[in-house]
Amino acid sequence: MPDLPIPFGDDVSAAPLWGEGMAVLKTDMLVASTDVPPGMSLFAAARKAVVMNISDFASKGVLPTAIVVALGLPKELATEQAVTEIANGLNAGAREYGAYVIGGDTNQTQELIISISLFGTARSGLMLRSGARGSDILAVTGLFGKTAAGLRMLLDGGKASSSVRAALEDAVYNPKARLREGLALRGYDFVTASMDSSDGLAWSIHELARKSKVGFVIDKPPIAPEAQEFGAQNNLDPLELALYGGEEYELVLTVKPGKFAEAQAVVQTVGGCLIPIGHATFDRQVVLEIEGKRRKVEAKGWEHFKSHV
Amino acid sequence: MPDLPIPFGDDVSAAPLWGEGMAVLKTDMLVASTDVPPGMSLFAAARKAVVMNISDFASKGVLPTAIVVALGLPKELATEQAVTEIANGLNAGAREYGAYVIGGDTNQTQELIISISLFGTARSGLMLRSGARGSDILAVTGLFGKTAAGLRMLLDGGKASSSVRAALEDAVYNPKARLREGLALRGYDFVTASMDSSDGLAWSIHELARKSKVGFVIDKPPIAPEAQEFGAQNNLDPLELALYGGEEYELVLTVKPGKFAEAQAVVQTVGGCLIPIGHATFDRQVVLEIEGKRRKVEAKGWEHFKSHV
Repeated sequence: MPDLPIPFGDDVSAAPLWGEGMAVLKTDMLVASTDVPPGMSLFAAARKAVVMNISDFASKGVLPTAIVVALGLPKELATEQAVTEIANGLNAGAREYGAYVIGGDTNQTQELIISISLFGTARSGLMLRSGARGSDILAVTGLFGKTAAGLRMLLDGGKASSSVRAALEDAVYNPKARLREGLALRGYDFVTASMDSSDGLAWSIHELARKSKVGFVIDKPPIAPEAQEFGAQNNLDPLELALYGGEEYELVLTVKPGKFAEAQAVVQTVGGCLIPIGHATFDRQVVLEIEGKRRKVEAKGWEHFKSHV
Repeated sequence: MPDLPIPFGDDVSAAPLWGEGMAVLKTDMLVASTDVPPGMSLFAAARKAVVMNISDFASKGVLPTAIVVALGLPKELATEQAVTEIANGLNAGAREYGAYVIGGDTNQTQELIISISLFGTARSGLMLRSGARGSDILAVTGLFGKTAAGLRMLLDGGKASSSVRAALEDAVYNPKARLREGLALRGYDFVTASMDSSDGLAWSIHELARKSKVGFVIDKPPIAPEAQEFGAQNNLDPLELALYGGEEYELVLTVKPGKFAEAQAVVQTVGGCLIPIGHATFDRQVVLEIEGKRRKVEAKGWEHFKSHV
């Protein structure tokens, strides 16, 4: 399409609208065999299908208004009870973020597929993946590793105290999108780049680096205490869980260095937090620097066609 | 959603826009095991996924402008060659109708799934399923039965002359949406109801009857000559093929009785045709009346969770 308002390959797509502003679109599918871990209810799976799409809107600072759903049901789920539970989960996910499910279609498939499309509008430029500049502060909206730890626990087993178990299960079964944070930050020119972290923290930082043509030094990796504890109890590296997990729906963004306190204040007004974890560099490398030691961060993460963890 | 511009359950969904007009959305998925008959290429399958969604826009008289795609690929299709062929088919389907593919996501699935979402805008009321009144003319934009005959031929075998075979294969592999016809008719108040026929002619007429609270008498069933010939050669009732097939993307619509010639002229200006097949009645029955004999038309058709033919 000529004059695409958003380049191909960003978190969302857009088309010009009535000569002003743009229609913002996002579609992604939840697939039972790769996105629904053991023990997840149909309600939670349907809600997650919505949340994972809303997270992309959040990262661009766009309010989703309408949702359409293409539902693929295997024969054993073609029951009124199953469809009602899915519909309730879709609706819960939508209403949680102010959107409405306005239509859709059902199909027969070999496994459960919930394909969601979001629509919203925006008047002006969004927060893209491509604007980071050397020396910008790299920040996230929450700590990482709970989902990777939780998936390990659910798929492979693993010791955890009851409180850690509950926190990890909640991270896996009931993910949240950072829509308020994204909407609050939108329109401030001090946010130079933004994306969501659903493919993993390390992968997302590499992607910001690629799209912005910069590098990053991570000196304060944002490891969740529950991931730390689960790692210690199960002989897993918490840093690995935080960097190379996935299906975590935080925002990863860059902020002009002199404006970080202002950005933090903006996010705090909506009850969120903005955690600095490093800074952009000019050399196109993504490295971890802890106690003076540097090592490369691999460009791997949560990708399709790979196993869960 | 409050103030939905289009009621739930019509061919497309819509949301109000900038205080004027509406955003029109449609999503539906093509599923390998139910929507891709033997011998269909990936290119043709991807193109069909687009066409089946565009047909719904056509039935409302809305121009699709942007398309996003959620692609589910089984492992054996996760190759550059397969993805390129799919991308080419998507693009061919989109450009054929003036739309652009502006984004999407890929996922791993057990079978090929191509989930398409269309976006377009409309300034005012669309042609809904619900406006038919008793005595309106019932009309279609083409003849029926080729796809049902073609699927029989491809799935079960069946005799056909080479020219009939070519026509039936073309109907199955290379379906067309009646977008020009829908766009041409849009805005004329003599079109009282409209929908697409992808679930089958009989099913579509029943659906118009339900939504409009009328009945229909069909006295000139629109049977394609190729379906007639295939039926005669293979001991199949051509009328059954025409009424109870599916995956045919004609428009089924109703026109105010005094205005039918005008509607036909409008469709002819874009190279299409409008074929009268019966009329609406006040009694909520859908009946076939041939040579003075009446019989009920069943409310069955191409539905998901049923076999192809």
